[in-house]
Amino acid sequence: MPATAREPRRLAAIDLGSNSFHLLVANAHQGELQVVARQGEKVQLAAGLDDDERLDEAAMQRALSCLGRFAPFVEGIPAQQLRVVGTNALRSASNSQTLIARAEALLGHEIEIIAGREEARLIYLGAAHALADVHGKRLIVDIGGGSTELIIGEHFEPLALESLHMGCVAYTRRFFADGGITERRFRQAELAALSEIANIQRAYRELGWNDPVGSSGTIKAVAAVLAAAGDSPEGIIQRDGLERLRKRLIKCKQLDRVALDGLKADRARVFPAGVAILCAIFEAFELTHMRYSDGALREGVLYDLIGRDTAEDPRLQTLAAQKRRYGVDTRQADNVAATAMAALAQVQTHWQLSDEAGQFLAWAAELHEIGLAISHSQFHRHGAYLLENADLPGFSRPEQQLLAFLVRCHRRKFAVKELEALPCALQPRYARLARLLRLAVALNHSRPEQPIMDFTLNVGGEALQLTLPRHLAEHALLLNDLQQEAVYQQSAGYRLAVDPVAVEV
Amino acid sequence: MPATAREPRRLAAIDLGSNSFHLLVANAHQGELQVVARQGEKVQLAAGLDDDERLDEAAMQRALSCLGRFAPFVEGIPAQQLRVVGTNALRSASNSQTLIARAEALLGHEIEIIAGREEARLIYLGAAHALADVHGKRLIVDIGGGSTELIIGEHFEPLALESLHMGCVAYTRRFFADGGITERRFRQAELAALSEIANIQRAYRELGWNDPVGSSGTIKAVAAVLAAAGDSPEGIIQRDGLERLRKRLIKCKQLDRVALDGLKADRARVFPAGVAILCAIFEAFELTHMRYSDGALREGVLYDLIGRDTAEDPRLQTLAAQKRRYGVDTRQADNVAATAMAALAQVQTHWQLSDEAGQFLAWAAELHEIGLAISHSQFHRHGAYLLENADLPGFSRPEQQLLAFLVRCHRRKFAVKELEALPCALQPRYARLARLLRLAVALNHSRPEQPIMDFTLNVGGEALQLTLPRHLAEHALLLNDLQQEAVYQQSAGYRLAVDPVAVEV
Repeated sequence: MPATAREPRRLAAIDLGSNSFHLLVANAHQGELQVVARQGEKVQLAAGLDDDERLDEAAMQRALSCLGRFAPFVEGIPAQQLRVVGTNALRSASNSQTLIARAEALLGHEIEIIAGREEARLIYLGAAHALADVHGKRLIVDIGGGSTELIIGEHFEPLALESLHMGCVAYTRRFFADGGITERRFRQAELAALSEIANIQRAYRELGWNDPVGSSGTIKAVAAVLAAAGDSPEGIIQRDGLERLRKRLIKCKQLDRVALDGLKADRARVFPAGVAILCAIFEAFELTHMRYSDGALREGVLYDLIGRDTAEDPRLQTLAAQKRRYGVDTRQADNVAATAMAALAQVQTHWQLSDEAGQFLAWAAELHEIGLAISHSQFHRHGAYLLENADLPGFSRPEQQLLAFLVRCHRRKFAVKELEALPCALQPRYARLARLLRLAVALNHSRPEQPIMDFTLNVGGEALQLTLPRHLAEHALLLNDLQQEAVYQQSAGYRLAVDPVAVEV
Repeated sequence: MPATAREPRRLAAIDLGSNSFHLLVANAHQGELQVVARQGEKVQLAAGLDDDERLDEAAMQRALSCLGRFAPFVEGIPAQQLRVVGTNALRSASNSQTLIARAEALLGHEIEIIAGREEARLIYLGAAHALADVHGKRLIVDIGGGSTELIIGEHFEPLALESLHMGCVAYTRRFFADGGITERRFRQAELAALSEIANIQRAYRELGWNDPVGSSGTIKAVAAVLAAAGDSPEGIIQRDGLERLRKRLIKCKQLDRVALDGLKADRARVFPAGVAILCAIFEAFELTHMRYSDGALREGVLYDLIGRDTAEDPRLQTLAAQKRRYGVDTRQADNVAATAMAALAQVQTHWQLSDEAGQFLAWAAELHEIGLAISHSQFHRHGAYLLENADLPGFSRPEQQLLAFLVRCHRRKFAVKELEALPCALQPRYARLARLLRLAVALNHSRPEQPIMDFTLNVGGEALQLTLPRHLAEHALLLNDLQQEAVYQQSAGYRLAVDPVAVEV
């Protein structure tokens, strides 16, 4: 039940970054956030990745003990008011599921790995709220431990979103592994960053901006070091100051000897790599200055949570954009969604499906035919591929996976193997949603003008019994489809009985 | 070298259908075909599929001995004037590669498995030429052994193309496996066909037509049987005649006892299933009549070969449509293609790459960024998925696989595993094309206004040596990218030396 406008709602975000973990707890009041608690720890998750991209046990322990300290802050906050998001290190680690399972058990809450562009969108949302006073287009830069997000936007609207594979922890491992700092290595790091930026450089410069802004730890630290040296005004990074900082770092010769006024000791080791990336960004975009601003991923996550209760839910825009791009037959999509909702209503209590689960069922129904744009043959697979891999603003990875699974499983054989590849705890619920979607698709197979709504669905355990009204019970093609569907469900171990003639009451 | 307009070119098509194999040899003269030879054999490939969708040895032997009889007819016809296409049975058999390898060795020619919609496009092309006198929209129906194609088109333009999973051999196995024919089984076959048609029924009826036309064996046989019984005018199937034929077949009770005037004995066993599919098509589209017309897949293949020498090459339209759909940055695509062609020109002789191979290199360059429409992350994989799975009119499966491989391999690590999954004989050539594309992408990485053209590429065996002109040799980012590329190629076992300074001559 959404809170009324009067009571503040407590919201919380935990950001499992590649360098730092952050906690932010706030009260949402009339669309604004009043911060209640803020915590940050340099967990250096990405530093624990070995050559095979596996997180080592020490890194996992650092992560879990940090989360142990965060846990009391989020106790009692309802699930839909808390989001825990993982970024690049968890995206790329081959064994991130191990850590996630342990962390979820510890927090008692789901962890979502978000895609790079989704991270960029949330960062922009956080930064845009912090910058609400400024007009014109902004370039937002967020150098993280494993990835760097670059966003151009105006007001609350991102115009270009990118997440590049470069970050201060990853580049420290790659270019400063043995601890030495030389002009040559620094330049190599800059060239690697320039090479990543080259992909987007022209498009960004054509779009243009009039306010370059940096957020998060690396850029905050650069601003602090320059201010401490009297090299730039407070909170502003100027090009010549940055160049002097670059020289000072190279003079340090060793990561261990990087000690600068304004720089916290726990950032020193990854600071040169972060500065190299920032220098590359100044070079690529010919920046003369950049200002630092608070407001980053975790703030974006909270503003996004506020938005989900209102018409602003960015996922609705995303769904509409997907339907447009792939030319979905909206009447059929809406009909299948309506039938699916009618089916859900009859089993929701018994099957303990939440309204949120129902929302995903409806969304999967609306998207189930997007794969037709690629090919009619195996279009359920193509649709699932698109939903699994596309940048879907507002959706987390597990949410995309749920949509992809439902679309994958909506026709032909029940996709048992794909179901079993999903986290165990989710399988029973996802299977139920898939069965409802399949039924809705089968009932609307002949693409009627109006959705099929007048059926009765009884449920006993996992068994379903479908009873059709008399006018449908004589529809031989429909019966044939439903009998085929019963066979498919049977093969997957589910019982679906189709009773063609309704018993009159 | 294309023949001049005066000399007729000899063209040949072999169609490896699920029920029959067909050979057609013709002289192309001013855009028309003069048939030189025509052969057909009921190989019943699909009848040799077991429950695991494996072709049995007997079916392979039938196929190979038929091809042995076809082989002398195509001897001496140049490769680019002969196409051997496989349809549904080869699409669905899990071991079709075994048969294909043996058949290719026997014919000394490549065999292409074509997608369902490509089959439909070629059927329409063949039928449209046979029907050139008639105006208005046509519905073309082609009931094959494993699939049925339904196309609406006007003049030479298909407006809707579909290939459905139903055919006379497949449905004989599924509904008449023990040889009995009953009203109930006949109706089950019709309902299964109606269920397949339901997916497209509404869209086709909305598009409409004024001339229903049938092609190929099943429909030809129905027309012949009805004419022999005096039940329909020659070459016309009328609804009431078809219904009487249905009753006559059910009265036969057994497939073995199906013997009708006008029906060849070798079609009798699969005839009832074919008639059931035709009855379902009449029912779904409320047809009152259908006329039979010659001109089907094999004719379409030949007209398509004629088109490839002219501006009509349907693949060019397809490429343009893909670039539009996925919003390709055409300047960058054209620049990469131009650089790739400049690179090819310098190695083509030594590496023995045909002009056709070069064409695919250019096409892959034009499409290499289509995956960006899905997500920036891993966009080379997304592009390959689209090219592998999309319906690309005019392209055969192996052609799509080549494009998909080149796009998959255009950046990041050299896709060794994907290369090794391709037919052995093709691997060296495809690897060379991929290396040229990678080089073109790396050279244009900074997205310049004009393509990079002034480089020298020397080749010795598989080793490449790239020499840059002085103005590029000072471009640190470009050198860095090329050195990274040299590392990637080295890891895949290829040598690429980058010589930054050109030796002045």
